[in-house]
Amino acid sequence: MTTRVDIIEVSPRDGIQNEKTLLSTQTKLELIDRATAAGIRAFEVTSFVNPKRVPQMADAGEVAQSLKKRSDTRYIGLVLNERGFERARLSGLEDVNCVVVATETFNRRNQGVAVDDTMADIARIAAMAHDSGVRMGVTIGAAFGCPFEGEVTVERVTEIAARLAELKPFEIALADTIGVAAPSDIKAKFSAVAREIGGIALRCHLHNTRNTGLANAVAAIESGVTRIDSSIGGVGGCPFAPAATGNIPTEDLVYMLDRMGVETGVDAQALIDTAQWLGAMLGVSPPGMLQRAGMFPPAAGAAA
Amino acid sequence: MTTRVDIIEVSPRDGIQNEKTLLSTQTKLELIDRATAAGIRAFEVTSFVNPKRVPQMADAGEVAQSLKKRSDTRYIGLVLNERGFERARLSGLEDVNCVVVATETFNRRNQGVAVDDTMADIARIAAMAHDSGVRMGVTIGAAFGCPFEGEVTVERVTEIAARLAELKPFEIALADTIGVAAPSDIKAKFSAVAREIGGIALRCHLHNTRNTGLANAVAAIESGVTRIDSSIGGVGGCPFAPAATGNIPTEDLVYMLDRMGVETGVDAQALIDTAQWLGAMLGVSPPGMLQRAGMFPPAAGAAA
Repeated sequence: MTTRVDIIEVSPRDGIQNEKTLLSTQTKLELIDRATAAGIRAFEVTSFVNPKRVPQMADAGEVAQSLKKRSDTRYIGLVLNERGFERARLSGLEDVNCVVVATETFNRRNQGVAVDDTMADIARIAAMAHDSGVRMGVTIGAAFGCPFEGEVTVERVTEIAARLAELKPFEIALADTIGVAAPSDIKAKFSAVAREIGGIALRCHLHNTRNTGLANAVAAIESGVTRIDSSIGGVGGCPFAPAATGNIPTEDLVYMLDRMGVETGVDAQALIDTAQWLGAMLGVSPPGMLQRAGMFPPAAGAAA
Repeated sequence: MTTRVDIIEVSPRDGIQNEKTLLSTQTKLELIDRATAAGIRAFEVTSFVNPKRVPQMADAGEVAQSLKKRSDTRYIGLVLNERGFERARLSGLEDVNCVVVATETFNRRNQGVAVDDTMADIARIAAMAHDSGVRMGVTIGAAFGCPFEGEVTVERVTEIAARLAELKPFEIALADTIGVAAPSDIKAKFSAVAREIGGIALRCHLHNTRNTGLANAVAAIESGVTRIDSSIGGVGGCPFAPAATGNIPTEDLVYMLDRMGVETGVDAQALIDTAQWLGAMLGVSPPGMLQRAGMFPPAAGAAA
């Protein structure tokens, strides 16, 4: 098993996109600053989507342009089409992530077109990214189950992954968008996809909807995945997935990985403070559990 | 990995003992009936402790005597001393569980005496159990960390387990009483204890305090454990452990194990209904997540 995992902090995008309270651009930048100070070195910073559909992302360009960039940190913009890619590129981002959903029904709800149309969009974006020196990753959404079509087969996911691999993306993520996977599902699909895509890096995006999130993260790591998406406080959820809940909480993941001897470079205690701050900004009680229970063992001098 | 796990439903004991709302004896019996109907075949039904310290358990004898017992089901009473054992035996229980806490400070808070005194109590109870044909198991509490003393070493746990093994208990449980373990801790301690205790069955008791509960259940199963404690709705917590939260939710565990092909004989959907009923009885919103998110795939005809 790997001894190092790179956490991709998605709270500025997936984490807040479904929240009713709109955060100011300054607050989003502060979130990224705080997470950077805690050791996070990869972010999904925003998404370049229709602000009418996702009002929280209306300031995508401003967020991207205002980042205090570090050379050792990835700043990824989510894009769903060529127009989104152009906005991301013009905002100075050097990392974009595209999405194709594994099922026709959910892809139409999420992107408004058929899977094949989205695949064609991604091929065009791949060409544009190549020409402009931008790194492009792709997430396969609902790879472990769809709220509309139910189970998604291993074959369906590997077929999409194989087609994407021809575009030579920087990474391919499998997303458990609605949080239905068990560790066995994670191992089966990541192993099968790894066989299809050669040396392309794998990334794992989990939601803790049915309490299996951290178990699935362990399964992903045991399957060779070294890039895991998570969200400070576990905030988040897809606006187009019914009953979707948050991403796995970054600080809970870091706590677990620390005890397992898997290095992340991230300070869990600093993230507890940020989770509570983010909850206050959003006016919610984040589902993350470490920020309620506290570190173990407690710091010297702390009350039991 | 095993293809069968026996779930020990601890909601009637650990699940409710810390709740402010006192349940009637009839409600406790209905909880056990409902869980039995859902397929549960092992319960911690009550604890024979001082009702002044744990008022919820004041009707322990009445609960035990009123059970509609099935020959294929275990009904375990928690006992902390000889007096508790006598009460359990006179109430007709054929299964008891003792507790020794791995650290001196926590054992004194939980049982009022030193670890060596508790070990002597357990030895006397073992003799009484042997003479009366009662099965005795032992739980090693705080085996993965103590709220007062911090980390607990593998050596400390194996030393206690080895001493207990001399009493030939029916099973030995390791409890993550305050929910601090990571899967690596689970594997290290169960593997080490298994080497010390020969063929005595292992049982795993988890709390989901830091979101690692189901990941730890997987690790326990991968370590050869086939008996796992859980609590419908994830209700529960130890009254003498600061910031303790609930056991792992039975229905969440069953959902995950179902998908992993690990048989439990338990119907997760039936437990969802019982979790919601139990929450209403206690006046709480249970932390279990399947009862919020629902089954996947949803039953035919259900709304997405």
